[in-house]
Amino acid sequence: MTSYSAADHLYMQQALRLAEAATRRAAPNPGVGCVLVRDGRVIGEGATLAVGSDHAEIQAIKDCLSRGDSPRGATAYVTLEPCSHHGRTPPCAGRLIAEGVARVAAAMVDPYHEVAGRGIAMLLAAGVEASAGLMEAEARRVHRGFLSRVERERPWVVLKAAATLDGKTALLNGNSQWITGPQARQDVQRLRAASCAILTGSGTVLADNPQLTVREVPVAVQPWRVVLDGALKTDPSSRIYQGGRVLLASCAADPARLAAYQRQGVEALMLARGDGGADLTDLLRQLAARGVNQLMVEAGAGLNGALLRAGLVDEIVLYLAPSLAGDAARGLFAWPALTDLADKVRLDIVDVGKVGADLRLILRPGR
Amino acid sequence: MTSYSAADHLYMQQALRLAEAATRRAAPNPGVGCVLVRDGRVIGEGATLAVGSDHAEIQAIKDCLSRGDSPRGATAYVTLEPCSHHGRTPPCAGRLIAEGVARVAAAMVDPYHEVAGRGIAMLLAAGVEASAGLMEAEARRVHRGFLSRVERERPWVVLKAAATLDGKTALLNGNSQWITGPQARQDVQRLRAASCAILTGSGTVLADNPQLTVREVPVAVQPWRVVLDGALKTDPSSRIYQGGRVLLASCAADPARLAAYQRQGVEALMLARGDGGADLTDLLRQLAARGVNQLMVEAGAGLNGALLRAGLVDEIVLYLAPSLAGDAARGLFAWPALTDLADKVRLDIVDVGKVGADLRLILRPGR
Repeated sequence: MTSYSAADHLYMQQALRLAEAATRRAAPNPGVGCVLVRDGRVIGEGATLAVGSDHAEIQAIKDCLSRGDSPRGATAYVTLEPCSHHGRTPPCAGRLIAEGVARVAAAMVDPYHEVAGRGIAMLLAAGVEASAGLMEAEARRVHRGFLSRVERERPWVVLKAAATLDGKTALLNGNSQWITGPQARQDVQRLRAASCAILTGSGTVLADNPQLTVREVPVAVQPWRVVLDGALKTDPSSRIYQGGRVLLASCAADPARLAAYQRQGVEALMLARGDGGADLTDLLRQLAARGVNQLMVEAGAGLNGALLRAGLVDEIVLYLAPSLAGDAARGLFAWPALTDLADKVRLDIVDVGKVGADLRLILRPGR
Repeated sequence: MTSYSAADHLYMQQALRLAEAATRRAAPNPGVGCVLVRDGRVIGEGATLAVGSDHAEIQAIKDCLSRGDSPRGATAYVTLEPCSHHGRTPPCAGRLIAEGVARVAAAMVDPYHEVAGRGIAMLLAAGVEASAGLMEAEARRVHRGFLSRVERERPWVVLKAAATLDGKTALLNGNSQWITGPQARQDVQRLRAASCAILTGSGTVLADNPQLTVREVPVAVQPWRVVLDGALKTDPSSRIYQGGRVLLASCAADPARLAAYQRQGVEALMLARGDGGADLTDLLRQLAARGVNQLMVEAGAGLNGALLRAGLVDEIVLYLAPSLAGDAARGLFAWPALTDLADKVRLDIVDVGKVGADLRLILRPGR
């Protein structure tokens, strides 16, 4: 196993920060970060641009050249193995070799079948000192959306919910406005902006008629909006169907009804049928096939509960407002009544903090 | 207005710490703290003992004398105005005068009608430099139980609840064991030990048959256990009725039925009837009349909700376990369905922290 120095870790940390910032714009590609270092000095840095444009390594090389320097003899710290294949762009491994880079430290091997170790092999064959594994756990966290799509054939799923401290999302009459404060709502905009797609259910469209677009935060392209409406019960003139980049997922083979949505520019996804409705695994598989790395869920108790009980949620962002609505109100997660508390859904609390007057909890499914 | 030095604040802080530790043992008296200082040196300190024994000032004087010193010419920092009346013990103001104390800095005037400024007046009349108001807000917090009983004729009410992150306290079948972890359950024992009485409702007795005694934490006397059972539905052989110091609050004038509880040593409280059951204000008034400074509520959604909507809860200690039970389970607070979210109960989050794997929130009714 390769051993790495403290300096190696610091430069990779810098590359990981570049990667984090590039994740959304690079999707469905991984948002990679790259730092070029020679003689203890950073001589270039870059991160992946939008699809079809430069990968991180090329950006870092260009940055180095623009500084009047050359990557010859440098070490390239890169958060994912350089690619070895001609995709939409030429292989990065080849360019690193051509520029005379002496050493490549990658955080992890790229699991994508066209690469999968071939990038490292290509570098080694050309006499470059190349390895993967420097801060791999951190890189897996930064690249979680891309890795989920490639390795599990489904997006990384982040479920957002907002409730009172007694777990209520709305009154029985549907009134749900302003449960949380303005800071929490702005935080939700940032979450949306970091996602490739936003999923909701027919119940939410019927009850709240939301847009689910990113507002207040600049984005190059809006995330896809995905409505799961197995039986096509929603109104084709609902606000969510306006403005493009909308997918309607259903099990209904009703071309006339579907046409009403398609006239709004909505694309149809046909899902397999599962227990009690559309097959959620099929939905996530189809979204992954369309390049969705990170999916945000903003739905009601039914879809929230179904996804969670099916083990299809990777992270929950739960906003709790400092108020109580009482038992006679709508809840967060619906599933059939448990008879044994051992069957409750266990979560790990990853983070707790205040966002304005509200609490924000980051949760992961636990053991 | 008297002005106080930084040193004055430090000594009062010390007196407040002594007061905090004495609160439970002194009840129904206020657990007062007293520090005697001369020439920048603490020469004695004390806190109120159990009812009928020394008040804080006398303890501090005895401590001073036992160190071979004398309080003559000293300043006495005391968290509550020294008493001026012969109650179960002689007046502390008289003793401070007799010992030649030069100055008395009290945090606040004692609102108890037998004192109410007469202690300060007595000291001033004897030529002692006496004032009240040094760190009054902090003293009001420390003495909140006593002050609530004297000023509002009801205890300071602390409602404890434990739920999953979706606000569920139990399954529909009643299963509620082990929602929270061992550290949270021990924290509850400390809360019980700090309370003069613990209130629950008939529903909880019927469903869980709890003891509601203090375990694991040493206490000189167990808190009173109070069961609100308006119609005497609970089984007289329930565990909570064993072991003494139990009050049964009802509206039922049924001597034969009451006798069954009384044979267990249970005392009966007869309550006025209010809207939809027993008059909760009357209950709290009667508990205050019996010397209950701090009341802890460990009840179900019905009593919790009624107390909260009636404005009779001063503090909520909410434990949230990192798990979800789903909508089909029992909730925290029951009241009729709201039709407008503006009617939700607003809370202020005073503190948030982890207790083991659980979250603990300290909440106060907000604006």
